[in-house]
Amino acid sequence: MVKYCFGIDVGGTTVKCGFFSVDGEVLEKWEIPTRTENNGENILPDIAKSINEKLEEKKIDKAEVAGVGIGVPGPVNDNGEVPCAVNLHWGYKNLVKEMEEMTGLKTKAGNDANVAALGEMWRGSGVGYHNLVMVTLGTGIGGGIIVNEKIITGSHGAGGEIGHAHVEDSIDTPCNCGNCGCLEQVASATGIAYLARKMMEESDEASVIRRDNVSAKTVFDGVKAGDELAKKVAEKFGYYLGKALANFACVTDPEAFVIGGGVSKAGDIILDYIRPHYQKYAFKSCKDAAFVIAKLGNDAGIYGAAKLVLE
Amino acid sequence: MVKYCFGIDVGGTTVKCGFFSVDGEVLEKWEIPTRTENNGENILPDIAKSINEKLEEKKIDKAEVAGVGIGVPGPVNDNGEVPCAVNLHWGYKNLVKEMEEMTGLKTKAGNDANVAALGEMWRGSGVGYHNLVMVTLGTGIGGGIIVNEKIITGSHGAGGEIGHAHVEDSIDTPCNCGNCGCLEQVASATGIAYLARKMMEESDEASVIRRDNVSAKTVFDGVKAGDELAKKVAEKFGYYLGKALANFACVTDPEAFVIGGGVSKAGDIILDYIRPHYQKYAFKSCKDAAFVIAKLGNDAGIYGAAKLVLE
Repeated sequence: MVKYCFGIDVGGTTVKCGFFSVDGEVLEKWEIPTRTENNGENILPDIAKSINEKLEEKKIDKAEVAGVGIGVPGPVNDNGEVPCAVNLHWGYKNLVKEMEEMTGLKTKAGNDANVAALGEMWRGSGVGYHNLVMVTLGTGIGGGIIVNEKIITGSHGAGGEIGHAHVEDSIDTPCNCGNCGCLEQVASATGIAYLARKMMEESDEASVIRRDNVSAKTVFDGVKAGDELAKKVAEKFGYYLGKALANFACVTDPEAFVIGGGVSKAGDIILDYIRPHYQKYAFKSCKDAAFVIAKLGNDAGIYGAAKLVLE
Repeated sequence: MVKYCFGIDVGGTTVKCGFFSVDGEVLEKWEIPTRTENNGENILPDIAKSINEKLEEKKIDKAEVAGVGIGVPGPVNDNGEVPCAVNLHWGYKNLVKEMEEMTGLKTKAGNDANVAALGEMWRGSGVGYHNLVMVTLGTGIGGGIIVNEKIITGSHGAGGEIGHAHVEDSIDTPCNCGNCGCLEQVASATGIAYLARKMMEESDEASVIRRDNVSAKTVFDGVKAGDELAKKVAEKFGYYLGKALANFACVTDPEAFVIGGGVSKAGDIILDYIRPHYQKYAFKSCKDAAFVIAKLGNDAGIYGAAKLVLE
């Protein structure tokens, strides 16, 4: 009888591993290092070894295991192939085929941001929603689009690459993607720091955020302390993000937006800056979409990966 | 043996009806008037009567009919209910239930723009694509999002309402939806005429488009005649639409955009104005999406409706 599955989240430095019951309880979590040397050739064998060892340790037969779900930092197509994953030093890799051969277990793979969205839907702040958009506000902006409980992968694995929506014509510094004026340049942690530096240069207003290493945290700490300049930065961030989310809502009409990533650690206050702009620009039927802060944190990936293989 | 199905496209003045073979050949097409009086209470009975008469006329047993697909001008949820359809004078209607009771045939319903997208995918310019965005440039802008050959309905039936993406902060005249600065205000037939009037006011440039009733047709006829002001209007239209489509591509990463509606009658020349802006703003993996002109015209709705019931 099938009782268990694995959820694996492959990051650039660490692989997070989860051993789950099929009803979504995490029974054990551990980490292994991500060995990126030699084009990351050890990454998948290391994961397979860790899985096989875990099953031996627990004396669990593979017939009791539904399979292995894996999230990776890069595009993954519907056949489980990865064209390339820069942070893992991978070129093309037939991930699902290799893992199935090494483990003898059914494997499903997805992009890490998409998989995190699935995790939040299954066991996080998105519980009860079947259609949602997850927005991960970190160094960059990741996105995951869920429609009828399924990830939208896209025809090139670029479904949910919402950090690269164009939102500002006046920016002429290129984003990591090569374009200029991407959402990620003005609404990620890096983007909020950029807005803060720009607004500090443009005014003489005294502010607690005037320091050498202004960050998204500095800004939202300032907002909580009632700092006016910090509030203006937060307002600008909310304008860009809220307006962009309103435009995405025209496409898939989600029930909810789940906001995660490092910036979301500031808490519900960031929603107070996003929601009013969203509601101003959203199509009337979409204006009541819920906004919630993600709650699984760094575990969203292992939960979503587990869910991937249980589908 | 199931051999046939019906595809019905309900418009504000006429109901277009198609009788199809299950492999997608249209065997007969006809129209009946849309009787909107008394809250449109006759519309569905009229359609049911027409279907029943057609089967009697052709001496076809209902066991040979897969069912009835219907596209309507309004939101339709996944249960086949219509919350309201202004142009049909409908409030809430349980469309699928009523039609199934009146015809004894399985019924599926969808929003007309979404259904048209499915039609183009099945038998039009979208053949061969499984992920596409259809953009209908008429008086307004309709949209239909197809992912893995299925329509994205959305949680309020507003999936694909791309005409109401916000694209211009400087517009303070409300769109029909109540917001200001919607894509539809600058890139529909009406929107192109608005851009033309605005650009004529702002310059003294001589132009063939300087006439009382400037329209999208006037503009693209001018473009074809080499008129410089007409080209500037077309360029502005392409900027708004291309940039908006690039942002939608971040969400579902489509293989193709199918451009239909009255404005698309100008032909491939409109794509020459949209594509460069799309490619400038699109995320790198999405830049090679195809742009094609729709080819089913007013029949896209009946084809898509037929496909809906064959799924």
